[in-house]
Amino acid sequence: MSENKGLESGIETASELTESDRVRMNSKEAACKALELVESCGIAMVGSQGEDGYPNIKAMLKAEAEGIKTIWFSTNTSSKRVAQFKESTKACVYFVDQQEFKGLMLTGEMEVLNDIESRKRLWSDGCEIYYPLGVEDPDYSVLRFTAKSGNYYHGLQNVSFEI
Amino acid sequence: MSENKGLESGIETASELTESDRVRMNSKEAACKALELVESCGIAMVGSQGEDGYPNIKAMLKAEAEGIKTIWFSTNTSSKRVAQFKESTKACVYFVDQQEFKGLMLTGEMEVLNDIESRKRLWSDGCEIYYPLGVEDPDYSVLRFTAKSGNYYHGLQNVSFEI
Repeated sequence: MSENKGLESGIETASELTESDRVRMNSKEAACKALELVESCGIAMVGSQGEDGYPNIKAMLKAEAEGIKTIWFSTNTSSKRVAQFKESTKACVYFVDQQEFKGLMLTGEMEVLNDIESRKRLWSDGCEIYYPLGVEDPDYSVLRFTAKSGNYYHGLQNVSFEI
Repeated sequence: MSENKGLESGIETASELTESDRVRMNSKEAACKALELVESCGIAMVGSQGEDGYPNIKAMLKAEAEGIKTIWFSTNTSSKRVAQFKESTKACVYFVDQQEFKGLMLTGEMEVLNDIESRKRLWSDGCEIYYPLGVEDPDYSVLRFTAKSGNYYHGLQNVSFEI
């Protein structure tokens, strides 16, 4: 049943966990593995507070990561996310390896930045496709996420830690 | 710069969009493409209202999908998600194809079900790895998500529609 392939592959992966995967991780080990996951992912899922209190999710390109504490994104100033983060900075950023069943949820604050230093920091050749007017395009905004806690998930374990 | 690979690959993909990708989708076309994406994904990102109003995200195995209206999951009764959805049913479910830059956000309500019919509906051989006591394991809960609106994203376009 193709409808059920998610569940079936999950069961298969969980069944294949070795004994070493079952040894309880401590917070320090989890934070190390979290960093590996952040470094390996080009895309993150960004969670925001949407209309009427509904959570919203959007896949966004990771522009830069400073460890697991600070994650940078860019987006259109006119976008829904910018409006939402101006309303509330409460955010989460989620990194996932779907093949290996690894996930990292970071929760913290998302700031919308428009200063020239932040704009230049993330700018690279080709960004014109998103922001045709260049680095000073008013429709170009930088998002800086600062994590305060994390939860790392692998196999059947999950470990929370402060950042 | 490996730090920047997310942004670089995004620019590359956006640059490769053909003219046909730029023709404006209507809501009906978007809903059709949304269905294809749901059917092709074994895993969804589930958004919930977390502690202190922070959005939370977790990758979950899609157990069953009825079109794009109703998506079924299972999880541990003792889990954080169950506690959150008992507190507030407000949810989103996000499907993503990271290679093709396609994303679908569904927003709606998540119910926690424990009746035997729902339990049996999602049960399959091997589920004991998650719920050792079998189909009547008190730590086995079914989550049924009912979408009320969707937003389908591909390339540089996104289209919203009611469901």
